[in-house]
Amino acid sequence: MEYEEFTIEGRNSVIEAFRSGKTIDKIFLLDGCQDGPIKTILKEAKKSDTIIHFVPKERLEQMSKTGKHQGVIAFCAAYEYASIEDMLNLAKEKKEDPFIFLLDNIEDPHNLGAIIRTANLAGAHGVIIPKRRAVGLTAVVAKTSAGALNYTPVAKVTNLSAAIEELKKKGLWFVCADMSGDVMYKLNLKGPIGLVIGNEGEGVSRLVKEKCDFMAAIPMKGEIDSLNASVAAGILAYEIVRQRMA
Amino acid sequence: MEYEEFTIEGRNSVIEAFRSGKTIDKIFLLDGCQDGPIKTILKEAKKSDTIIHFVPKERLEQMSKTGKHQGVIAFCAAYEYASIEDMLNLAKEKKEDPFIFLLDNIEDPHNLGAIIRTANLAGAHGVIIPKRRAVGLTAVVAKTSAGALNYTPVAKVTNLSAAIEELKKKGLWFVCADMSGDVMYKLNLKGPIGLVIGNEGEGVSRLVKEKCDFMAAIPMKGEIDSLNASVAAGILAYEIVRQRMA
Repeated sequence: MEYEEFTIEGRNSVIEAFRSGKTIDKIFLLDGCQDGPIKTILKEAKKSDTIIHFVPKERLEQMSKTGKHQGVIAFCAAYEYASIEDMLNLAKEKKEDPFIFLLDNIEDPHNLGAIIRTANLAGAHGVIIPKRRAVGLTAVVAKTSAGALNYTPVAKVTNLSAAIEELKKKGLWFVCADMSGDVMYKLNLKGPIGLVIGNEGEGVSRLVKEKCDFMAAIPMKGEIDSLNASVAAGILAYEIVRQRMA
Repeated sequence: MEYEEFTIEGRNSVIEAFRSGKTIDKIFLLDGCQDGPIKTILKEAKKSDTIIHFVPKERLEQMSKTGKHQGVIAFCAAYEYASIEDMLNLAKEKKEDPFIFLLDNIEDPHNLGAIIRTANLAGAHGVIIPKRRAVGLTAVVAKTSAGALNYTPVAKVTNLSAAIEELKKKGLWFVCADMSGDVMYKLNLKGPIGLVIGNEGEGVSRLVKEKCDFMAAIPMKGEIDSLNASVAAGILAYEIVRQRMA
């Protein structure tokens, strides 16, 4: 288990954090702010013995890392990284075939947040990110994940290829997006699956691609050559959702 | 026709702009920069009589609006807004059923850029945005669209509902994302179609929703309640692509 120091900014994100049972050490609220969401936050904070500070706007601005605090910043104990085992157990608990995202060096925190958000809603059991050369769980990631970081386990691994090998032994198949592959609608993406998402500029790295069982092509009918990484992740993830529902 | 003053930043975006035949008045290049993409830009600039300025890094930083100029900033005549008629003509030329995106007050320029990028690759014939209360075609939008803004027509309208009425007369059906609707996989989304994407926080506005023929639910299996707007747009757009290919 590893830990990272953490703040959560924005009303919905803070409310979600309380509701998911996360330990929040203290919150900073904009002085004089009394609307509905802020009252909800105060109620939750009292329930869980969180220390409450009312501070002027300037102080909040100073503390804010995202620039979008909406009058509230919460200091958490930490975001706890999960293990791969946690994800497999979560799938077992839900009596579902494992469905795990693997991110090959996503660098933009907005993309990472959006992908964790998608993983949560697509019913994935976790997201695996590499330790090096990739963005970690920063405040911007937490904010753009819209609360998903509280529910969807995120594991950090030294070596993605090794993680793939480990998961193959547990019965998972691996698919990555690649324009030279078969059209995704024609692949069989049911069963235990790992979805590999490449880096924003370079796509999936060669070594990781070689470990994949399928290369799925998202049909491209336009003039440019690639989708935004988090959009591509969403499209492929929901093709998996569609096939699982069929 | 309306115009907006425009700069394009980043190597791929500038190369794409040249290749699409856009009029670039002048370019600013980082002094001493001589790699492959910069040479391509120089060649294109000479071909099209673009004025070339070599400037020091500080100057580029000062001019940059995105903070990601990668050594090149181009000044364009303008991005020309298209008309709805242009989009219908484009569909006719390609002998395809019209497929048009309508964005109900997207506020984040990264989302707008990513959605235009998706529209291009999904084979849509245009993107309609409202004049008020929404982000326009800024430098950040051009950059995040990854060149798609050069190919996919964007129209600005005073009233989205009126645009929908106009397009209904041309035979288009309208679908918007809504959790209370039918699962998208069960809807018939073939034929001439308008895809309505809602605002980041509030979704599709009531008046626009009332004009839609279908409400499509993206299956949500997680704990949080909504996808990122550009991811949701991508997932729905590609459900339309899938049905059109079937």
